[in-house]
Amino acid sequence: MVVIFLISTSLKVENEDEKIIRTIFDKALTEGESYENLRYLCKEIGHRLTGSPEADKAVLWAKSVMEKCSFDTVYLQEIFAPHWVRGENNSLQLSHLGMSHPVEFTALGGSVPTNGLLQAEVIEINSIEELKERADEVAGKIVFYNIPLDKKLIDPFKAYGGCVGIRYSGASAAAEFGASAVLVRSLTTQTDKHAHTGIMGYKEGVDSIPAVALSTHSSDILHSLLTKGKVTVAMELHCQILPEVKTYNVIGEIRGTLYPDQYMVVGGHLDSWDLGEGAHDDGAGCVQSIEALRLLRSIGYEPRHSMRVVLFMNEESGNAGGKTYAIRAIQNGEQHIFALETDRGGFSPRGFSIDGKEYQIERVRDFSDLLKPYGLYYFEPGFAGVDIFPLKQLSAEGESEIDILLMGLYPDPQRYFDYHHTDQDVFEAVNQRELELGGASMSSMLYLMDTF
Amino acid sequence: MVVIFLISTSLKVENEDEKIIRTIFDKALTEGESYENLRYLCKEIGHRLTGSPEADKAVLWAKSVMEKCSFDTVYLQEIFAPHWVRGENNSLQLSHLGMSHPVEFTALGGSVPTNGLLQAEVIEINSIEELKERADEVAGKIVFYNIPLDKKLIDPFKAYGGCVGIRYSGASAAAEFGASAVLVRSLTTQTDKHAHTGIMGYKEGVDSIPAVALSTHSSDILHSLLTKGKVTVAMELHCQILPEVKTYNVIGEIRGTLYPDQYMVVGGHLDSWDLGEGAHDDGAGCVQSIEALRLLRSIGYEPRHSMRVVLFMNEESGNAGGKTYAIRAIQNGEQHIFALETDRGGFSPRGFSIDGKEYQIERVRDFSDLLKPYGLYYFEPGFAGVDIFPLKQLSAEGESEIDILLMGLYPDPQRYFDYHHTDQDVFEAVNQRELELGGASMSSMLYLMDTF
Repeated sequence: MVVIFLISTSLKVENEDEKIIRTIFDKALTEGESYENLRYLCKEIGHRLTGSPEADKAVLWAKSVMEKCSFDTVYLQEIFAPHWVRGENNSLQLSHLGMSHPVEFTALGGSVPTNGLLQAEVIEINSIEELKERADEVAGKIVFYNIPLDKKLIDPFKAYGGCVGIRYSGASAAAEFGASAVLVRSLTTQTDKHAHTGIMGYKEGVDSIPAVALSTHSSDILHSLLTKGKVTVAMELHCQILPEVKTYNVIGEIRGTLYPDQYMVVGGHLDSWDLGEGAHDDGAGCVQSIEALRLLRSIGYEPRHSMRVVLFMNEESGNAGGKTYAIRAIQNGEQHIFALETDRGGFSPRGFSIDGKEYQIERVRDFSDLLKPYGLYYFEPGFAGVDIFPLKQLSAEGESEIDILLMGLYPDPQRYFDYHHTDQDVFEAVNQRELELGGASMSSMLYLMDTF
Repeated sequence: MVVIFLISTSLKVENEDEKIIRTIFDKALTEGESYENLRYLCKEIGHRLTGSPEADKAVLWAKSVMEKCSFDTVYLQEIFAPHWVRGENNSLQLSHLGMSHPVEFTALGGSVPTNGLLQAEVIEINSIEELKERADEVAGKIVFYNIPLDKKLIDPFKAYGGCVGIRYSGASAAAEFGASAVLVRSLTTQTDKHAHTGIMGYKEGVDSIPAVALSTHSSDILHSLLTKGKVTVAMELHCQILPEVKTYNVIGEIRGTLYPDQYMVVGGHLDSWDLGEGAHDDGAGCVQSIEALRLLRSIGYEPRHSMRVVLFMNEESGNAGGKTYAIRAIQNGEQHIFALETDRGGFSPRGFSIDGKEYQIERVRDFSDLLKPYGLYYFEPGFAGVDIFPLKQLSAEGESEIDILLMGLYPDPQRYFDYHHTDQDVFEAVNQRELELGGASMSSMLYLMDTF
């Protein structure tokens, strides 16, 4: 009798889960709002660098969108964030044997300006080891880091991970040996004509020198010119590092019925680089995060834990949003048990990258069969997301008895670095169904984590 | 001792498989030729409707590409195939309350011409059942089948499957009740301005009436006008159904070392519709199929079974290539044990659709773990491909002791019907890495099927 009872209960529950997930996907694919939200964010607001007027507009827009979702509370969380601007009329030219060559370039985020025209000879460097070996050749020159992403890595995020360190700290590494500026090969596996920006930083006590990305196409040309002889670069950057700005995370909340003091977060980042429209990075993640919670609301689901959608500000250039959210959560004694980020583009979802303990990963795999009919197969340990990572860092330092579990939506990764941090990252590069499937996947995962 | 021997052998073999598959992917991603081949096929030749000069050029080009791959034999296989041409200056206009409305349209493949200007009132029909119920209203009218794909189906190929019957046989179904022509809503889940062509056919003994596809955007406009009142269509089609043409399948072969009389086939179809460039459908499949065999050759692998790449002609408009290949295989006593098709676009590969007996599917799943590091998770029973299906049909009718196993590469299916049979299906819509990963996946599967 007991056995029969257990079996029938378990069947009932499973069917209920199947039904709810089916309803979430049906709604997302037929009455979804994420695609139109993304259109508005990209086309009516545009790119949203922290501190820009567009970032301010995006904050107000996101708040108004959430207010229409009939969440229990919608509010802004004040943060103070770094403020960098690219400046206008930046220029860069290669000269070789008296001929000038046009290049596709963009200042890296956080770079200092050039202080007038900077002119110097270029030296190509292919690894940090080579930089050290050739330290005595570097003084006064412009270091060109021509380190391609490893195409053999199946996941391009791993290839990116292998090169992002040079983009971030290559300037100071070269400045330690007296370089006057750095040019960095764009971080993409493709050969194309789009320069990819991204954050860089300076080491204290070392001269801050200008840092620029060249397109992979221009990098190949520069490399080829260097094999034939001396190349000089003349560049002028008008970037500015301004005082910190006050800005906001945007938060929408549904109060939990059973455990209102335990929080589950879904989020992406509202800021973007100032090229393109920040469509895949991370407009998609923002509209999917709102959609994930909106879908649960729209099917009448009442979560047991409190659920929040958080659109973080300043992921690209300092992560002030993610850090501040985590600090406030600790200060307010809000116990966070789960956070789900999406910041890998609005591509066809394949599953989730899980940052948790072994028992937590096993628990997720236990119910992962419920998600396989929706094309979700990937449930592997891995990094979850920059914005939510401080939640785990600070929890670990505290005395929480519950291990917070982090997850990142894992969409198909192959095309992400075709668009990443370039003028190509526009609304048209996002497919409606892929976007909607991602939002529904996140919504379903929130539901499952709430009930299991 | 025996046990130890078995274990160490098994370990050795597994490591060997891992190594070979790794080498295949490395080569594909760093020295692949499929992307440049696709560029040539799309940009230098263009679309390739059976019977067109471009199809003839594509045959010679494919032969020359295979000859450079140092296969053992490369040859053309003669086939006779249907020949239809769209004609020039086709026109179609909607009139409503004296106003004329432009529409995006395209004749369906195989349609008869209009015989001058055809003008008639439109009646909208939303299912075959509705057609029968309203049979007495149809005579003399133009039937507008406005049946959208079911967006709720996660795999858009299933949604396509639910509507393709109307596109194929809707004209005769309407003609039985006296309709003068049919307009069919394009088969895509998107709302866009591109008309999607595709094959249609006529039932013997029923009048052949013209058949046209409207873009989903134009279909929505027509639907909206019809809710307000009477709509008339004036159309003129100059399509021609010409006598059969002689054309060719293109075949490249590597002779097997152990079982030269047993054949494994990998292929796609060389013909395309006459809109766009046939990039995803099925230029991608052609260059991936060549690449699959070329990669095995380039790593020095000597297959145990004979392997063929077959580029089939006429998949879109009669499947004469697939049928003829199967008939010749039977006539020549060539025992085919495995055939792998790719005709679902050059998107990021997710696995394989398997058409075989339960024990065969289990066998594939047994070694599927070797493919998971490459993002391949999907190993499910399903349809393999139009071109290779006759091989199974005819084998089943023969007395073969070996069950032929069919497989289709299963790429991510979400974006396929954005491009399918439209002017949008061009080289630029294909991503290099996704294409290369697909070719490497097929090559690896060929290798595994050869050794397991």
